[in-house]
Amino acid sequence: MGWQDYLDREQDRFVAELKDFVRIPSVSAKPENAGDVAAAADWVAARLTKAGMEHAEVIPSAGHPVVYADWLHAGADKPTVLIYGHFDVQPAEPLELWTSPPFEPQVRDDRLYGRGASDDKGGMFIPILAAEALLAETGALPVNVKFFFEGQEEIGSPDLPPVVEANAERLKADTIFSSDGLQWREDMPQIVLALKGLVSLEITVTGPRGDLHSGLHGGGIANPAQALSHILASLKSLDGMIAVEGFYDDVLPLSAADRAAIARVPYDEAAYLAETGAPAPFGEPGYSTRERLWARPTLDINGLTSGWQGAGTKTVLPSKASAKITCRLVANQSPERIFERIRAHVEAHTPAGVSVEVARLPGRADPFLVPAGHNATAAAAQVLEEVYGKAPYQTRAGGSIPVMTTLLETLGVHAVMFGFSHDDENLHAPDEFFRLSAFRRGQTAYAKLLEKLGGA
Amino acid sequence: MGWQDYLDREQDRFVAELKDFVRIPSVSAKPENAGDVAAAADWVAARLTKAGMEHAEVIPSAGHPVVYADWLHAGADKPTVLIYGHFDVQPAEPLELWTSPPFEPQVRDDRLYGRGASDDKGGMFIPILAAEALLAETGALPVNVKFFFEGQEEIGSPDLPPVVEANAERLKADTIFSSDGLQWREDMPQIVLALKGLVSLEITVTGPRGDLHSGLHGGGIANPAQALSHILASLKSLDGMIAVEGFYDDVLPLSAADRAAIARVPYDEAAYLAETGAPAPFGEPGYSTRERLWARPTLDINGLTSGWQGAGTKTVLPSKASAKITCRLVANQSPERIFERIRAHVEAHTPAGVSVEVARLPGRADPFLVPAGHNATAAAAQVLEEVYGKAPYQTRAGGSIPVMTTLLETLGVHAVMFGFSHDDENLHAPDEFFRLSAFRRGQTAYAKLLEKLGGA
Repeated sequence: MGWQDYLDREQDRFVAELKDFVRIPSVSAKPENAGDVAAAADWVAARLTKAGMEHAEVIPSAGHPVVYADWLHAGADKPTVLIYGHFDVQPAEPLELWTSPPFEPQVRDDRLYGRGASDDKGGMFIPILAAEALLAETGALPVNVKFFFEGQEEIGSPDLPPVVEANAERLKADTIFSSDGLQWREDMPQIVLALKGLVSLEITVTGPRGDLHSGLHGGGIANPAQALSHILASLKSLDGMIAVEGFYDDVLPLSAADRAAIARVPYDEAAYLAETGAPAPFGEPGYSTRERLWARPTLDINGLTSGWQGAGTKTVLPSKASAKITCRLVANQSPERIFERIRAHVEAHTPAGVSVEVARLPGRADPFLVPAGHNATAAAAQVLEEVYGKAPYQTRAGGSIPVMTTLLETLGVHAVMFGFSHDDENLHAPDEFFRLSAFRRGQTAYAKLLEKLGGA
Repeated sequence: MGWQDYLDREQDRFVAELKDFVRIPSVSAKPENAGDVAAAADWVAARLTKAGMEHAEVIPSAGHPVVYADWLHAGADKPTVLIYGHFDVQPAEPLELWTSPPFEPQVRDDRLYGRGASDDKGGMFIPILAAEALLAETGALPVNVKFFFEGQEEIGSPDLPPVVEANAERLKADTIFSSDGLQWREDMPQIVLALKGLVSLEITVTGPRGDLHSGLHGGGIANPAQALSHILASLKSLDGMIAVEGFYDDVLPLSAADRAAIARVPYDEAAYLAETGAPAPFGEPGYSTRERLWARPTLDINGLTSGWQGAGTKTVLPSKASAKITCRLVANQSPERIFERIRAHVEAHTPAGVSVEVARLPGRADPFLVPAGHNATAAAAQVLEEVYGKAPYQTRAGGSIPVMTTLLETLGVHAVMFGFSHDDENLHAPDEFFRLSAFRRGQTAYAKLLEKLGGA
């Protein structure tokens, strides 16, 4: 395996280059770092060219730019593979909690410390290096490859969908892999089968025109905070079922195989409670805690606001009471249909004496579920088993990754998460680090993946 | 009637003196006006002496001072009458909404405009002038009189109870009148029979240790905002009954006479709704809106707080959710017993998966109900009928006036509200004014009242 020798031989240079990359403070959330995000884009485009990729281009968006490059000489009978990742990073604050400065990367104990080392600079650099090694050692890549990296993932990719749409022809691919992802543990791989969708809304109940004296008006007219409580209580039964009519109608039931795959993944409920500090697990009856977390839709109140919130007492009968709510959706549920069902339920369950408004809030994602027998997923699972010596867990996540939906909707392809970070690497926190063992293993895995997809 | 001639003759001087009094910005809420509150106390003590009262003294408290004076030469066979009022005022802001500056009093259309003109400087000056006129014209007062004025009513009289307690012997009286009160309309008197009591509390529901990601943890553990909603919904039935076990147990039922007295007072529900902006009246079935407002206990949520309250969406599963609640109580209910019943109810109705705490908040008052056949109330009603030519309405108020309870508890006497302001006089608002017709009529009424109490 020539490419493996190449990877082994060049590893010190790769780590030095990754340190250069991490030194760029490409914090997408801070306007004053916009130039650094642009500099990171330039670094990525140059590095893609250096790896032998072609047509490297920094494409502007309404916000931070994206970077594209390709190598398309494998032939029309070979698949085209799109690889996604992001070169922007989270803010580094609080700076005083870092052992070494966030943008002065250091290697300690075979770990590279620095903001973005794991999320996602180390991750997105891996497939570039795999392609470089394959091309250097064999003079070609086994498949046609397109790279597509963005600079605004950490702020929710607000300007990404129009860029993907405008470049849909250029981005067209048979399979998509995201380098922005996690393995289960250092010694255990995973394939993420599903992500949840999201719908966000706010319920606002209005009573009197303004806050009134609770002594002069209490008992005379309805209290909107009381009415809101009745509405919110009606959304769920006391045992945790969502009581909105039709809420579960479109949910694909979990098959016995689905439940077996979930049960295969070890789960320590005591550790989970210790981590969250919750006194007990709680939720929809008939499902395990992990099934609820991974594979059942949820409805959560994110915030409540009404009347007096300061210290002590203020004897008001509030004018308004509102609740912010998000639902996490599973495959086959539609954010729009769920919103309409909740709106109808709320309107039907609003007590007398107040008016109610139910409004969508920003924050929307379709649920994501890899279809059974999905070819790219099977290839990824085989490579992981070869590299780790163990079949990967089939996991799901309760969160939403809007870019997965954007790619699916615009390009018509289910992306596969194929990343090598770990959730203990202080992503979004001080002392973020990336295991260099994972950095190396990821390069091997991506090279094998491209070979496998090319029919090797 | 010599004293009436005296009052008529001296009226211009009285108005000029009231203007001097209003010029002192005795705003009890603002620390920078503490010296002005003290100056107002000195003004009152000097004015009491000028009226012929004796032993005038400014008594310090832990906060703003009180003023005491008396005239005790009517003889041991005559009753002793204590008259209460306050010389502090509300803040005047927003200043730009005043037609003339708040502390530069002006008479326009037989109304004196200025902060405190009606609440309660004009009100508390009235009985001083009545006493002055009686003493000047007859050389004596028909009863023994004690004046007791405070300087912190507008901030809830926090330091008053210990001062009343420490001076209980000096303040001892057979009957008490409060000059701080309203008449129904300029042409219609009222006797306030009842005030509501107050108990204040906060319910805090806790789930996880900190706010969590609603995608990663939603469905796994209970949401404290959802649990709080179930608790709050359980406190009241959908038709407005309070559902706390035992809440109504101690309530004295309204008699047919009580209900007839309430029904005698005109009530315009359309006007009430227009004033509050509420879409409909709402509350406990079986009672008229006015009965609920005046004579039935209430439970109102004053505020709700949980999780994300800013713009847009933040996908948190909140750690805590809390509600502030006040109950207004009617005669025979105890704030302490009601608190314990609510606490027991909340603990019994807290859903699984969270913990709950129910805590008292500052803000407490016993309900106040003038006993049937109360002598001082009968005398006040007779005087009002003489002065207005109409029998007063028997009204109640949903609010709480803690000083009424303090006087009752320490001195053992039910105070009678005998004041001449009106609720349209912009109390606590810009352009506060006092009708000088009420100022004059009040003087006559107080002189008649003292005569009547003296057996005239």
